[in-house]
Amino acid sequence: MSATKRLGAQTIKMQYPPTIIASATIVGEKEGKGPLENTFDKVLDDALWGESSFEKAESKLMRETIMLAVEKAEQPMSNMHYILAGDLLSQCIGTNFAVRELEVPFFGLYGACSTMAESLSLATILVDGGFADYVVAATSSHFCSAERQFRFPLAYGGQRTPTAQWTVTGAGAIVVSSNGNGPFITHITTGKIIDLGIKDANNMGAAMAPAAADTILQHFSDTGKTVNDYDLVVTGDLGKLGLALTDQILKENNLDLQDKLNDCGLLIYDIEAQDMHMGGSGCGCSASVLCGHLLKEIKIGNMKRILFVATGALMSPTSTQQNESIPCIAHAVTIEKELR
Amino acid sequence: MSATKRLGAQTIKMQYPPTIIASATIVGEKEGKGPLENTFDKVLDDALWGESSFEKAESKLMRETIMLAVEKAEQPMSNMHYILAGDLLSQCIGTNFAVRELEVPFFGLYGACSTMAESLSLATILVDGGFADYVVAATSSHFCSAERQFRFPLAYGGQRTPTAQWTVTGAGAIVVSSNGNGPFITHITTGKIIDLGIKDANNMGAAMAPAAADTILQHFSDTGKTVNDYDLVVTGDLGKLGLALTDQILKENNLDLQDKLNDCGLLIYDIEAQDMHMGGSGCGCSASVLCGHLLKEIKIGNMKRILFVATGALMSPTSTQQNESIPCIAHAVTIEKELR
Repeated sequence: MSATKRLGAQTIKMQYPPTIIASATIVGEKEGKGPLENTFDKVLDDALWGESSFEKAESKLMRETIMLAVEKAEQPMSNMHYILAGDLLSQCIGTNFAVRELEVPFFGLYGACSTMAESLSLATILVDGGFADYVVAATSSHFCSAERQFRFPLAYGGQRTPTAQWTVTGAGAIVVSSNGNGPFITHITTGKIIDLGIKDANNMGAAMAPAAADTILQHFSDTGKTVNDYDLVVTGDLGKLGLALTDQILKENNLDLQDKLNDCGLLIYDIEAQDMHMGGSGCGCSASVLCGHLLKEIKIGNMKRILFVATGALMSPTSTQQNESIPCIAHAVTIEKELR
Repeated sequence: MSATKRLGAQTIKMQYPPTIIASATIVGEKEGKGPLENTFDKVLDDALWGESSFEKAESKLMRETIMLAVEKAEQPMSNMHYILAGDLLSQCIGTNFAVRELEVPFFGLYGACSTMAESLSLATILVDGGFADYVVAATSSHFCSAERQFRFPLAYGGQRTPTAQWTVTGAGAIVVSSNGNGPFITHITTGKIIDLGIKDANNMGAAMAPAAADTILQHFSDTGKTVNDYDLVVTGDLGKLGLALTDQILKENNLDLQDKLNDCGLLIYDIEAQDMHMGGSGCGCSASVLCGHLLKEIKIGNMKRILFVATGALMSPTSTQQNESIPCIAHAVTIEKELR
């Protein structure tokens, strides 16, 4: 059949908006000491969580988070028709070794820190399209595994640059279903890769800002919605600088989101007191803020409709060494308390 | 709505089977000297293709292949609603830097060598579900970028082990559409991660065989089809040993595919004359055989219905160093000349 669910150039509108029937998030110690401390399901006090490597700890983090989300959905794992997930580690081993134990059909994703929105988008599509009743969307990041892969050995006491962000240790998982009473996923705006030439891998907020702005502008253009339709437009991990740049680009394009624009990387830490420079980053940043704080706020009615815009920087250590700039992407998902 | 398109535990049946309206494949010199030499759109005589690194050459390979497929579909790139793609390189830089230039909404995937079937599955779902009219599914691998990432520096003249396979330099891209006269994609069987404990990264065929067999058995169980319904069941890159093991597992489970079982890693090279040990591997192996040879055979009517089963080994150099075994996956897609 022809594409009847399309709305503008990059947005699709769900015909039977799927429900987020459960979510779970497990985070590390630093995240547990931030302002959202009471919104996580579990806070770890040991970065290794009893495992022999940080990579194995990250796998455990994702596996336990998925299992908890499915448990909260009051379903056996065998009822899950698909898991869609990815992480930052090369060849996505955080995810692959997490999912290995779960015996659920699996689509592996790589969207860097946009993965929570990417997995949620595809999970929603599978459910809305009649291909599945229960789908898990998940992602994770771990400060220690990311730091040593992308930057320096953990034991190396390097000075962080002023524009640096802190990779969140955390995982988030969501169970999307055809049966439920909300929150509903109603619209999906899928991003294009945008690269304005930033090459500084310690300034990812600036690199990702144009991609975030592009997807947000496209969403409002495609849907015809205005700032009044949303309680919050929340980006993934732009941090302080990236968010300011995004706001500037949006305003230059006549979209003033006022106090409704915020970023998960700013929400998750008290960046001054915790000395977090520009704020949090990593797949687990937007995932843990969405799966804890944001979905709770929607459920209790403090927010009726949000636009969740996870942002990803798609470079690698190899591409940086080869003097390439940082290609970025942002995917947006509209989450609503009730259907109107 | 509830999941009306499900057929058994892991298979979905398309309601409006999408069409493969175009495909393209570009390969390297060795592949161009194999038995399928006349089925590729272009054969490179330079592994760098004018680029300054093998990784950049791989990006160019994927980008040019996608552009050629879209050109063959007689559509402008701007009509493509999505690109779904991934590759073997850490953080999928082969793909990210390829897609950066194309300005199409993008979902990044990581399925290792299963990516052609994974991207084709999700592209088909997007079209069948009414979310898109034109979707590109693509993947690539490059011998030189893979070899130095996963094994040894290219200049190191190491002896290959007898069970080694050869990473194909090649990319494949398919345009899936709601409008067309076939070949049609009718069924999708999505694999689970299977890991029976193989740790030898030079014996991926043996590692992947149980995953291939699991998905094939599940497909036949879910659909109720028999060997007579298919002209070919073709795995991705099991090679000689992996294919023999898969055949053995299938027979132990009462499925004898006779001479209808084959592997893209055996089809792409003359493995004796070209000294390819167990055969070809890499995302580009199954992609280039499907996008060239197999789709041509279907179009001219030599084959009416095939099951394309791309197989992926989901380890990384880090997981191997940490003494982990190799988690594997296989995704299957039914491609038919005409709807019956």
